[in-house]
Amino acid sequence: MKKILVLNGPNINMLGVREKNIYGQQDYAALCEYIGQEAAALNVEVEVRQSNFEGELVTLIQQAYGKFDGIVINPAALTHYSVALLDAIKAVALPTIEVHLSNIHSREEFRHRSVTAAACLGQICGLGFQGYALALRALAEKG
Amino acid sequence: MKKILVLNGPNINMLGVREKNIYGQQDYAALCEYIGQEAAALNVEVEVRQSNFEGELVTLIQQAYGKFDGIVINPAALTHYSVALLDAIKAVALPTIEVHLSNIHSREEFRHRSVTAAACLGQICGLGFQGYALALRALAEKG
Amino acid sequence: MKKILVLNGPNINMLGVREKNIYGQQDYAALCEYIGQEAAALNVEVEVRQSNFEGELVTLIQQAYGKFDGIVINPAALTHYSVALLDAIKAVALPTIEVHLSNIHSREEFRHRSVTAAACLGQICGLGFQGYALALRALAEKG
Amino acid sequence: MKKILVLNGPNINMLGVREKNIYGQQDYAALCEYIGQEAAALNVEVEVRQSNFEGELVTLIQQAYGKFDGIVINPAALTHYSVALLDAIKAVALPTIEVHLSNIHSREEFRHRSVTAAACLGQICGLGFQGYALALRALAEKG
Amino acid sequence: MKKILVLNGPNINMLGVREKNIYGQQDYAALCEYIGQEAAALNVEVEVRQSNFEGELVTLIQQAYGKFDGIVINPAALTHYSVALLDAIKAVALPTIEVHLSNIHSREEFRHRSVTAAACLGQICGLGFQGYALALRALAEKG
Amino acid sequence: MKKILVLNGPNINMLGVREKNIYGQQDYAALCEYIGQEAAALNVEVEVRQSNFEGELVTLIQQAYGKFDGIVINPAALTHYSVALLDAIKAVALPTIEVHLSNIHSREEFRHRSVTAAACLGQICGLGFQGYALALRALAEKG
Amino acid sequence: MKKILVLNGPNINMLGVREKNIYGQQDYAALCEYIGQEAAALNVEVEVRQSNFEGELVTLIQQAYGKFDGIVINPAALTHYSVALLDAIKAVALPTIEVHLSNIHSREEFRHRSVTAAACLGQICGLGFQGYALALRALAEKG
Amino acid sequence: MKKILVLNGPNINMLGVREKNIYGQQDYAALCEYIGQEAAALNVEVEVRQSNFEGELVTLIQQAYGKFDGIVINPAALTHYSVALLDAIKAVALPTIEVHLSNIHSREEFRHRSVTAAACLGQICGLGFQGYALALRALAEKG
Amino acid sequence: MKKILVLNGPNINMLGVREKNIYGQQDYAALCEYIGQEAAALNVEVEVRQSNFEGELVTLIQQAYGKFDGIVINPAALTHYSVALLDAIKAVALPTIEVHLSNIHSREEFRHRSVTAAACLGQICGLGFQGYALALRALAEKG
Amino acid sequence: MKKILVLNGPNINMLGVREKNIYGQQDYAALCEYIGQEAAALNVEVEVRQSNFEGELVTLIQQAYGKFDGIVINPAALTHYSVALLDAIKAVALPTIEVHLSNIHSREEFRHRSVTAAACLGQICGLGFQGYALALRALAEKG
Amino acid sequence: MKKILVLNGPNINMLGVREKNIYGQQDYAALCEYIGQEAAALNVEVEVRQSNFEGELVTLIQQAYGKFDGIVINPAALTHYSVALLDAIKAVALPTIEVHLSNIHSREEFRHRSVTAAACLGQICGLGFQGYALALRALAEKG
Amino acid sequence: MKKILVLNGPNINMLGVREKNIYGQQDYAALCEYIGQEAAALNVEVEVRQSNFEGELVTLIQQAYGKFDGIVINPAALTHYSVALLDAIKAVALPTIEVHLSNIHSREEFRHRSVTAAACLGQICGLGFQGYALALRALAEKG
Repeated sequence: MKKILVLNGPNINMLGVREKNIYGQQDYAALCEYIGQEAAALNVEVEVRQSNFEGELVTLIQQAYGKFDGIVINPAALTHYSVALLDAIKAVALPTIEVHLSNIHSREEFRHRSVTAAACLGQICGLGFQGYALALRALAEKG
Repeated sequence: MKKILVLNGPNINMLGVREKNIYGQQDYAALCEYIGQEAAALNVEVEVRQSNFEGELVTLIQQAYGKFDGIVINPAALTHYSVALLDAIKAVALPTIEVHLSNIHSREEFRHRSVTAAACLGQICGLGFQGYALALRALAEKG
Repeated sequence: MKKILVLNGPNINMLGVREKNIYGQQDYAALCEYIGQEAAALNVEVEVRQSNFEGELVTLIQQAYGKFDGIVINPAALTHYSVALLDAIKAVALPTIEVHLSNIHSREEFRHRSVTAAACLGQICGLGFQGYALALRALAEKG
Repeated sequence: MKKILVLNGPNINMLGVREKNIYGQQDYAALCEYIGQEAAALNVEVEVRQSNFEGELVTLIQQAYGKFDGIVINPAALTHYSVALLDAIKAVALPTIEVHLSNIHSREEFRHRSVTAAACLGQICGLGFQGYALALRALAEKG
Repeated sequence: MKKILVLNGPNINMLGVREKNIYGQQDYAALCEYIGQEAAALNVEVEVRQSNFEGELVTLIQQAYGKFDGIVINPAALTHYSVALLDAIKAVALPTIEVHLSNIHSREEFRHRSVTAAACLGQICGLGFQGYALALRALAEKG
Repeated sequence: MKKILVLNGPNINMLGVREKNIYGQQDYAALCEYIGQEAAALNVEVEVRQSNFEGELVTLIQQAYGKFDGIVINPAALTHYSVALLDAIKAVALPTIEVHLSNIHSREEFRHRSVTAAACLGQICGLGFQGYALALRALAEKG
Repeated sequence: MKKILVLNGPNINMLGVREKNIYGQQDYAALCEYIGQEAAALNVEVEVRQSNFEGELVTLIQQAYGKFDGIVINPAALTHYSVALLDAIKAVALPTIEVHLSNIHSREEFRHRSVTAAACLGQICGLGFQGYALALRALAEKG
Repeated sequence: MKKILVLNGPNINMLGVREKNIYGQQDYAALCEYIGQEAAALNVEVEVRQSNFEGELVTLIQQAYGKFDGIVINPAALTHYSVALLDAIKAVALPTIEVHLSNIHSREEFRHRSVTAAACLGQICGLGFQGYALALRALAEKG
Repeated sequence: MKKILVLNGPNINMLGVREKNIYGQQDYAALCEYIGQEAAALNVEVEVRQSNFEGELVTLIQQAYGKFDGIVINPAALTHYSVALLDAIKAVALPTIEVHLSNIHSREEFRHRSVTAAACLGQICGLGFQGYALALRALAEKG
Repeated sequence: MKKILVLNGPNINMLGVREKNIYGQQDYAALCEYIGQEAAALNVEVEVRQSNFEGELVTLIQQAYGKFDGIVINPAALTHYSVALLDAIKAVALPTIEVHLSNIHSREEFRHRSVTAAACLGQICGLGFQGYALALRALAEKG
Repeated sequence: MKKILVLNGPNINMLGVREKNIYGQQDYAALCEYIGQEAAALNVEVEVRQSNFEGELVTLIQQAYGKFDGIVINPAALTHYSVALLDAIKAVALPTIEVHLSNIHSREEFRHRSVTAAACLGQICGLGFQGYALALRALAEKG
Repeated sequence: MKKILVLNGPNINMLGVREKNIYGQQDYAALCEYIGQEAAALNVEVEVRQSNFEGELVTLIQQAYGKFDGIVINPAALTHYSVALLDAIKAVALPTIEVHLSNIHSREEFRHRSVTAAACLGQICGLGFQGYALALRALAEKG
């Protein structure tokens, strides 16, 4: 049974409070539950972690080395400047998929660019909670 | 039963011949077959079209208005400069998901930017054929 | 009696459907009729053509050489990147006026720049259908 | 009867002296007379003012508030940097059309950009004196 | 008793008319009265001047030399390009605070940059009328 | 009685040691005491926190939600790149004022730009300790 | 006997009409004849095609796969933005030489950059008709 | 006897007060006297004017048409953005030399660029008062 | 005996796992041991710390004030954006040398720029473990 | 019989040693011999010179004035920054063709731009030794 | 009696041959003679040197240290990129004036910028031979 | 015994005269002596060369091929633009370390970038004479 680490970056824990016109009405607990259900349906084991600290996210990625078969990461705001996350993903070389709840291409110019995606297999954005389910499926189906 | 138009841009028909280290071994017929199978599994009707002409892709999007419930589009090279595709997607206002076989963020600088994604619900890249399946599912599950 | 070619680029045929807050409620047939009436009032002969293909627009411009006395062109999305249209207008050297329905200067940054206008006599933007009438008059009055 | 303010920016008063290959042989008095005739033909009342001072142009726009039904403005050199004019036009919120005698898109790079046009209904450029007549007609015909 | 010059740039006199969603409902007379009251409360003498002319603002700054103990300036649109104001403030070397009614950082990109602030003690923006009161207090308390 | 959170970013705790020509002679304890006195005078309750961790600042802003009536934040170095702070301030949507001890407009080019200010009511810079007092007063007086 | 495809992009068919100071007096038929003669002299078989459509050029390149031993392409205006052509040339991986009649380095800034040349063996520009002959010889002599 | 107009832009009248480390100890009266003496020695007639208003400088240049044989201009701060001055100098087409007291190339980046110099015969900078004398001599010696 | 703090930034602890073609085969323990041996040979006392948190690295630099005679820092990914580290090094004003294992000038464009080096004595890059030894020697030999 | 100067810039003499994957196995003597044979076949006289000094290349171009009928130049690294070579080629106004062994468009970004080509008839790149032969033929056939 | 070194950069020796529309009809010998006469009139001793080699110009500047009282330099093409000349002028710290025959501000964009002028007292451009005379006078009159 | 070539670029020979606040009091002879002593201590043979000519430095690097085991190079001003040096170092493929006396990251913006370092093993900057000693040791210890 595959083990997948789901990492959420800064302010994802504020879902339900945070800019609802962009991020929707559901809160973070709902997201976690959704991920759990999707993982169960895909027969993969997931661990979901959230942190507002770049350093903690880097550490969690490092610790995934040898313990997980893949990573789904929503680096949130850090997407746009965290070379440390980029390097961490490269360092562990686990199959990683970047997810964004909103469509980063239809927001402010600076959100169009992802520093971290270059180290990932790919990226899914703009599909809300569903993005996580699709990313899990993608990793689950990987040879 | 939902009807979804799957559009493929320039050179996607060259799969199996084209830069295999990037795009893989399977050819375009295999992609079409894969999409058909996934659509069947999701219980959606799909029409798959490919064109090397920006103008034809624009026309196909326009003709989808009132006939399809959503669009999955891989604008390929046109992703990076076709304002005409951007405007066409905005004009019909159908839920549209942009797909790329390769991870555009780990290739040449000019491929990092998508002109067309701003008019879409979201974007999926880097997951090969699977990207199409995930996009179909996303549209199938939309309200 | 002067003969003027009126060319409309990609998605202009979607008027009435397309982003009505920007382009208004009237459809493309209404635009064609309006142009016809204005031409009649100015005593000029017009031929109105629309295409979603850059290549077809280029060809129509080329074919205007020796057959028309001037061109009114709304290159739409192609305004911002079509060097081929720029070169075509330069090639035939007919008096040409660029028209835009919307004010390109109050929209996205990338719409502020016109690649094609440099080959024209001038440009009229932001005045809706009226822009075509003004352009026709301008050409009609040219020595 | 509609009242329209026609504003001309720096150096427009030098017509007939100034770079004749760009601006033509006719002098500023000829332009004023032309505008008067066109206004009469359109049955609109015009007041034509010229100033070399950004501050005076700003003041004239402010004073138009509640007194005029629209503005035709050729901001000349100020087009390219006067945020004060942009703000003045926004402040009075009168329908305003920007006019340029020459085609700003076929001159120096810095003349391609208009700072002021974003606050206007639209822009007409490259059509010489005729541009003023077309702008007057556009305003005259506005609901 | 300290003497402070309060200078307002182009279009500040249009308060109450100008873009009310940005600048609020109160008019310029209300601003002047507010400043007067705040000055009285702080026991400083103020002179409030407004001009749409860069040149007049420069001259007023020059004339403040030796007559005033400080300047509160809202250069308005000129903030973003007036090197002449920058040089004038540097020339008289009076303690100067730049004020903006709106938050320049949440508006158009070109408003984020202040050419003039480099010559000032500091800048206060986004706090409406209050910004003037705070600036007066800051100058009043300076040694 | 209003409750206001005062947040200080990286290296603000080094006042009195750190580049005294820019930040002055007084140490961080003096700043805290000054803020306390000003708050008392304004009859507002303040909590002052400092952290060198972006993640902790983000968390403190999140925790302020529902507990504080406003935030005064000096993001220090993070001002120029922390999208995470920008998003956190947007998420809680509390009235927030950004403060900088030094005038960021007269320092290195990269310090002229604030990433975080776009989510704030406004910004005060260059006025030393006083900036905090002014920001507190601004929040205290808000409706 | 080697088979070489000679492709000409938009407006090359306008030779003899188009900007003669840049492109010379001879028309497109003369160019075709010249190419035919040079090919005969080099003992290679050529097929010469021209299109104003990016899509058609892409298709012709695709169809050359397995049928031709090399391509000489003058992408004309498309040189500067057609990623689709770039990708098509990469896809078929035939030895390709880019030719320009004029010296792109002594014309407008935007013509200095070639998007398509990166996929070619090399580029020849500025030598008029001769450029085609030299390109044919280069391909003819390739191993 | 040649007549030369000497124009000084914003803040030049503040010499002796203004940033003495850059502009020196001598005041504006001293500059005027120096220019008068040099003119006398060169046997040319000079008129020296200073203004803080771009509009007035533009007007003075326009009025010089047909009355003066040349212009020496120190546009001061306006050097870096006044397209209106550029256009005025082009309009009158009098031989004009731009002078700067300080070396604009060793100051802030934005001072390195001159918008106005393109319309002049040449530019002299960094030589203090002497720059005016050299410019007068240059004009005096012109054919 | 001099005391030197050796600080390692994010992912340096992944040596031996991380991109071995760039960072080599040896692990982080080997680096620590190497540093210890070199320090002993130079007769300096070292403390070696690693953190994935910018905030912790800032804090460690602050705590070095008054306790260490110099710092050797490898900010790793943070090199390219951490203004907080720049400010921390400036704040404590200890002689600091920046070290990079790889040659940042032959990697991705964004790695060529160091935000932090401006606050250091100098920088050593591309020499692997040896870089630390050389930096220690440089600090050991300082006055 | 035409006389043509063939100039090779810095490091071309290192052929056979230098980056063989880019420049091939053959050494500089082989290139010289090849050029000699091609020249003989074309019945032109050639002189081949190489220098690592920009100044010497400039001087050789100057000395070609009046002595040679054309120049084939491979400015090598100097292509990308030598304004002195650009000016020298313009000064002598001899028909000149720029040659590059490798395809500068598929190498580092900074090699895409040629400073020197603007002064030449044209440029040939990416065709190895053959490029010299083609350039010689082009010059030989010129009227 | 003051000793002044006059240095001329690449291609200045081609005067009379080189782009006469820009540089005039007179040859380099005429320039040298003109400089000699002007020097005599000013009672200064001059040595005039020309080189096409950056290295030689650097060396001549170095050798001027302690032997000359000032330098007049026309770095020609090197103006725009030679940091070596910039550093040489700074190294010897002799009063230096940069001269250009043509007006660099009305030529190609890349000629507007001077790398070397930052190390000079000032710059004179666009005045032809006269520029040298004015520069000599400026140095002769320096205290 | 290893043989190492030490190359110094333009103006390094002016040490002791040149900008002493940046480069220190010691002259070039002192540097050479220092290098000699360090080499002796490391038991390597060094040859130290200095040139103000890019071409000579390129030639010296070429001549090092097969004669030296490594190069220590301080390209000085040429660091920032000499592609010729970059190519020379790549051509000979000897282990090379770039040294700068001053910290290029805390000087003018244009000195932050090294064109030449990409071809080197690494770079050492900001450590004065010591940088050479460290570079020698690094090369001495290489395999």
